[in-house]
Amino acid sequence: MYAPGKTTEQCTTIVGELLENGTGPVLVTRTSKDQRAHLAEAHPGATTIGSLMAWRRAEETSGPTVGLITAGTADGPVADECLGVLEAYGRPVERIDDVGVAGLHRLLAEIDRITSADILIVVAGMEGALASVIGGLSPAPVIAVPTSVGYGAGLDGVTALLAMLASCAAGVTVVGIDNGYGAAVAALRMTAPGAQ
Amino acid sequence: MYAPGKTTEQCTTIVGELLENGTGPVLVTRTSKDQRAHLAEAHPGATTIGSLMAWRRAEETSGPTVGLITAGTADGPVADECLGVLEAYGRPVERIDDVGVAGLHRLLAEIDRITSADILIVVAGMEGALASVIGGLSPAPVIAVPTSVGYGAGLDGVTALLAMLASCAAGVTVVGIDNGYGAAVAALRMTAPGAQ
Amino acid sequence: MYAPGKTTEQCTTIVGELLENGTGPVLVTRTSKDQRAHLAEAHPGATTIGSLMAWRRAEETSGPTVGLITAGTADGPVADECLGVLEAYGRPVERIDDVGVAGLHRLLAEIDRITSADILIVVAGMEGALASVIGGLSPAPVIAVPTSVGYGAGLDGVTALLAMLASCAAGVTVVGIDNGYGAAVAALRMTAPGAQ
Amino acid sequence: MYAPGKTTEQCTTIVGELLENGTGPVLVTRTSKDQRAHLAEAHPGATTIGSLMAWRRAEETSGPTVGLITAGTADGPVADECLGVLEAYGRPVERIDDVGVAGLHRLLAEIDRITSADILIVVAGMEGALASVIGGLSPAPVIAVPTSVGYGAGLDGVTALLAMLASCAAGVTVVGIDNGYGAAVAALRMTAPGAQ
Amino acid sequence: MYAPGKTTEQCTTIVGELLENGTGPVLVTRTSKDQRAHLAEAHPGATTIGSLMAWRRAEETSGPTVGLITAGTADGPVADECLGVLEAYGRPVERIDDVGVAGLHRLLAEIDRITSADILIVVAGMEGALASVIGGLSPAPVIAVPTSVGYGAGLDGVTALLAMLASCAAGVTVVGIDNGYGAAVAALRMTAPGAQ
Amino acid sequence: MYAPGKTTEQCTTIVGELLENGTGPVLVTRTSKDQRAHLAEAHPGATTIGSLMAWRRAEETSGPTVGLITAGTADGPVADECLGVLEAYGRPVERIDDVGVAGLHRLLAEIDRITSADILIVVAGMEGALASVIGGLSPAPVIAVPTSVGYGAGLDGVTALLAMLASCAAGVTVVGIDNGYGAAVAALRMTAPGAQ
Amino acid sequence: MYAPGKTTEQCTTIVGELLENGTGPVLVTRTSKDQRAHLAEAHPGATTIGSLMAWRRAEETSGPTVGLITAGTADGPVADECLGVLEAYGRPVERIDDVGVAGLHRLLAEIDRITSADILIVVAGMEGALASVIGGLSPAPVIAVPTSVGYGAGLDGVTALLAMLASCAAGVTVVGIDNGYGAAVAALRMTAPGAQ
Amino acid sequence: MYAPGKTTEQCTTIVGELLENGTGPVLVTRTSKDQRAHLAEAHPGATTIGSLMAWRRAEETSGPTVGLITAGTADGPVADECLGVLEAYGRPVERIDDVGVAGLHRLLAEIDRITSADILIVVAGMEGALASVIGGLSPAPVIAVPTSVGYGAGLDGVTALLAMLASCAAGVTVVGIDNGYGAAVAALRMTAPGAQ
Repeated sequence: MYAPGKTTEQCTTIVGELLENGTGPVLVTRTSKDQRAHLAEAHPGATTIGSLMAWRRAEETSGPTVGLITAGTADGPVADECLGVLEAYGRPVERIDDVGVAGLHRLLAEIDRITSADILIVVAGMEGALASVIGGLSPAPVIAVPTSVGYGAGLDGVTALLAMLASCAAGVTVVGIDNGYGAAVAALRMTAPGAQ
Repeated sequence: MYAPGKTTEQCTTIVGELLENGTGPVLVTRTSKDQRAHLAEAHPGATTIGSLMAWRRAEETSGPTVGLITAGTADGPVADECLGVLEAYGRPVERIDDVGVAGLHRLLAEIDRITSADILIVVAGMEGALASVIGGLSPAPVIAVPTSVGYGAGLDGVTALLAMLASCAAGVTVVGIDNGYGAAVAALRMTAPGAQ
Repeated sequence: MYAPGKTTEQCTTIVGELLENGTGPVLVTRTSKDQRAHLAEAHPGATTIGSLMAWRRAEETSGPTVGLITAGTADGPVADECLGVLEAYGRPVERIDDVGVAGLHRLLAEIDRITSADILIVVAGMEGALASVIGGLSPAPVIAVPTSVGYGAGLDGVTALLAMLASCAAGVTVVGIDNGYGAAVAALRMTAPGAQ
Repeated sequence: MYAPGKTTEQCTTIVGELLENGTGPVLVTRTSKDQRAHLAEAHPGATTIGSLMAWRRAEETSGPTVGLITAGTADGPVADECLGVLEAYGRPVERIDDVGVAGLHRLLAEIDRITSADILIVVAGMEGALASVIGGLSPAPVIAVPTSVGYGAGLDGVTALLAMLASCAAGVTVVGIDNGYGAAVAALRMTAPGAQ
Repeated sequence: MYAPGKTTEQCTTIVGELLENGTGPVLVTRTSKDQRAHLAEAHPGATTIGSLMAWRRAEETSGPTVGLITAGTADGPVADECLGVLEAYGRPVERIDDVGVAGLHRLLAEIDRITSADILIVVAGMEGALASVIGGLSPAPVIAVPTSVGYGAGLDGVTALLAMLASCAAGVTVVGIDNGYGAAVAALRMTAPGAQ
Repeated sequence: MYAPGKTTEQCTTIVGELLENGTGPVLVTRTSKDQRAHLAEAHPGATTIGSLMAWRRAEETSGPTVGLITAGTADGPVADECLGVLEAYGRPVERIDDVGVAGLHRLLAEIDRITSADILIVVAGMEGALASVIGGLSPAPVIAVPTSVGYGAGLDGVTALLAMLASCAAGVTVVGIDNGYGAAVAALRMTAPGAQ
Repeated sequence: MYAPGKTTEQCTTIVGELLENGTGPVLVTRTSKDQRAHLAEAHPGATTIGSLMAWRRAEETSGPTVGLITAGTADGPVADECLGVLEAYGRPVERIDDVGVAGLHRLLAEIDRITSADILIVVAGMEGALASVIGGLSPAPVIAVPTSVGYGAGLDGVTALLAMLASCAAGVTVVGIDNGYGAAVAALRMTAPGAQ
Repeated sequence: MYAPGKTTEQCTTIVGELLENGTGPVLVTRTSKDQRAHLAEAHPGATTIGSLMAWRRAEETSGPTVGLITAGTADGPVADECLGVLEAYGRPVERIDDVGVAGLHRLLAEIDRITSADILIVVAGMEGALASVIGGLSPAPVIAVPTSVGYGAGLDGVTALLAMLASCAAGVTVVGIDNGYGAAVAALRMTAPGAQ
């Protein structure tokens, strides 16, 4: 459930219904501080990762590993949302941070972890070049997440979005700006269709 | 290989090298009429699908089925490119045409073929709404391909692109405008990493 | 009357003049909290729906029914503005909420209420796909209202706006982003020209 | 049927099926010269208006009159497409040409014809101001069609489109750029739902 | 002097220098509340109109009259800035408010005042249609000022800007969005070059 | 009269009517080669300047001089259209070519001709900087005409347009991209209102 | 290090590591007030210039001089960031302020300082014309920095950015909007590669 | 000299004047086939590289080496223009082709040639990621040239342009789309100011 635009009452009610009518994980993304407070009181037991709240998280399963890669520190919150969703569904995740292409040696130092992942999620703002490099290094599925990190010519993520769509690495797919949740669900669709 | 911006000589040379130095399929996309003529003469044995040429195509394998869905007749050429690439690598494809959302009954008539596919590629122009509907009907991976079909407010595919990125169906991923080749490779990454 | 950009004094004066010089409903849209407080004190008797204030509301009449449809909970405030205007003029409204296209079964469950409305107003953000689906299901006039719900690639409603204009369902018409008031007046023009 | 992107064979086949499987008008919009030649030969009896072909046109009925208004001579082809569709369904149309707002006296000279129409379609390029003026003069439904007439800052119709959406006249609705067909169908939805 | 981006100290110093080194009017536009307080204390004797401060204003002269026309109440602050500048230079101004094109009768009621002005400044947001109508009614110079009034498809004034540039009335000229100061200086250039 | 979008017949008819019903100059802008041939045959006596045709041109009058300035050779055709219109109405024009700001010495060599003109029209593409420099050098009215000269980041004239609107020289006014005709009429409005 | 999007803890940690593991200058750009307070306490000895903090600044060296030129007072903060970086690396800088092209005499008065610099950095908002003029006056490398100074048609720096890219002065290069840091590093690359 | 928009006569005349009035190289960029034929006849002795013509080319000098790097074959014509200009001024150039980031091993194989160049020009279309990687590998000046290579989401070079401006590698500078000439002149400004 996507929290913005919903009142705290609407959030609380919907989570209540979801908890009653199912057995899988229940997630709320992009909660405000106020929504989190109300939700935590009304429905105890949630794990909170940044602005994401998760109830009834699954145990980590074996199965395909998702490599979750960020270009820089500021991309962290989007990757955190992504990680929170994947963990709630029990997916094994290998996280690789701060390997933006301007420091190629840091990226190359992680090449084994990158190429051994079964699915790759690349989170990057500014010019989004990391998706192209990762797409060239690994034959696995690559889901690119543009972030609104940066200023000026980054155009709040539009530049990274366009760059990822125009990637010279064939077969890279893209989700919306800052959409860590969407990238996680895309990975779930590949590994456990029907769970999400 | 992407043909535009290359001379016929460059195309012919590169294909020659690819045919000598490997064993898998060799593909050239977006060829002009003139490039096709020269390539066909220099390197016989190609299969031509629209503007795509393919040499050394693989046998159809068993394995995951790709559902290839178009919204309208005019989206055909982009889907053809996609189909040509998938077939060259031996992927089984189920093609479902002309199920744009304005005729929901036609879409619902195909619901079994849609939900039984392992991976879905949705090719749509204009407002690109089909990707959202398919993403809601199936838990499988959905790769959306916006096309430049339409005029005026379609903005040469930008509208469909943005709509697919902003899809209310979580986990839909997107490739560039008219990029049937990219969608096919994304599906190959999911089903046979390393082959492409 | 559109409140933003007007001082509370200007609002109060204009409403006073409208109440003196006519007999029909008097409406102020997009009021701020401060404007509402001053208006309520200066001109008692208003009904307040969200940021809309209405004086001298008409009785509900018989006549054509407007089906007012939203894609998601967050589209509610725009639909509320629309509803407030229609009710102020006595139009019968059938409201159908949360039938976004990613959950097609919820939409199909409401198909009788949708197809029995005489005029349809579709309020949707993100990719705005609901307008196309409704336009295909019903032969009645469809007024689409893009909302700024969503983030990133939704571009504050521009994506939904473009998608609705490029709709594959012929004859769908569109009003400006978040313009619930405009959609209501468009429906009034169809049902009771001269009243608004 | 929208012709661009379809081969002449596809056009011919689809029209054949439509003529066999129904009794109402059959329309093809935006045909090329070549498509028209093939269609005329394969399916005689069509009326051709600009790039629109129509078979089995209805008799003119009584009923609500559509006022079809253009700002300038160059908006003519879009209005012609609109007119052709309305006539094919037997709608009475009152056409009022060349009343762009820079010549207000010409517009005022037609005020009786404008205000007596039951539905108004306004076709205008450049800055699209005519829609706002008509929307202020008449309480009837106004469907605005932006055209790509003009150059430079007209941005191929985007300027007129935005201007019509941002109209200061409440309740004006808009269709896509150059979409005369869409405007006609919108009017049909208001006057004879189910016919189109 | 344009105040934003300058510290209060910088503002105070520059105004001091301008007052010492010349004899004509001294103007500061777009001052913040804080800047106004400091400037008023440091340099007494200013006239304040909205966010504009003016010292050493000229007497009203005879000479060409500027017709200053607004479409709606919310365009007032931009027109006020324009008026403040013109008055500081002693230009006679005829102000005509609230004559937006959706209420053509109000505009026509002011036609004598409009056509008797020697220069016309038209201040309008939303779709900016007023500039085209005024440009058709009067042969005098027309300076159009788009405002950021409106929401959604008004795109913060870009729609009005484009519409004014694409005006069907020949010879209308345009200044930047909300640039009342620029429009006033353009009028000064026409009536008293060298004064500004 | 603006020729594009009109048939040769429409052009010929309208010019015929204009020649019969008035005594002033008759102008057709942006004619195609074919339109010119038909017009020249149907209505002899025209002067042709680039794509502009003019009948019944006025004698050159005394009165305010228009300084018509271009940044580079490629801006010539837009300036030619402007010149043709001004000459048709008998305005004295001083033309100053190729004084783009990258060669400031060439500009400074013409400073007397620039500052002695009563009205200035600045025609420039690329970054359009010339308008700002001229606006700083002369207190006279400045009408800036952005041209689509240049490529890539010039965005077909949008860059020059925006730059001219955002000019740091106060009181510069702007017309649409490549709109030499509009600039000329703006100058006519300043010098001989009612003539155009 | 670029501070936005990093927590104060992350900032403090990274600066600590940089101070331990090297000998050159350590810089943090775009710090918030809160980040500055924490950093100053955790790592004493920093020089603060606007939002830039610098530790271990180098002595001023001889070597090529950077001319740092601003168009207006409001461009100051971007130039300050640029200056702070250059000084931290010991580069000699000649700063020339307030020489925007609308006041060409002020610019010409500084022509000797401009032409004697070995590298030029031009910081300008609004229409960014200064870069073209400087590029024409000096044969030295010109790095243009568009700023978000201005409003309306300045489009938050996009107009200046496009204008600088489309400059008629050949060989001008551009960095991102408000990117004073980037311009400084570009100059360091030219004068002391490897230092930065 | 930039040829588009100039007649063959204007080209021929200007080249003649340049050859008479100087001693350095004379260059014409972006010539059409027709312009080339006339120029070659009127002024023999030119070297033609793609659409660039050069007279009086200098001998290759020693001095700083320019590394000219392309991402793909289709970027060749822009790099050729750049190379032609550098060679005409006698600059030593090291060209490195086809090292786009999707094939990182090819790029890494050239790392010695890349890091030994004194100035780097990076020519890349699509997502333009190569500039960021090169900027991270070398401390030398990097001039990035976005090209219009690619389709759809490449937006005719705008995507590469934005990506290069938003590069995560500090100090990368950018010229306009396809502006190989501008990049070459920027390199000349760094190595031999005054020659160009």
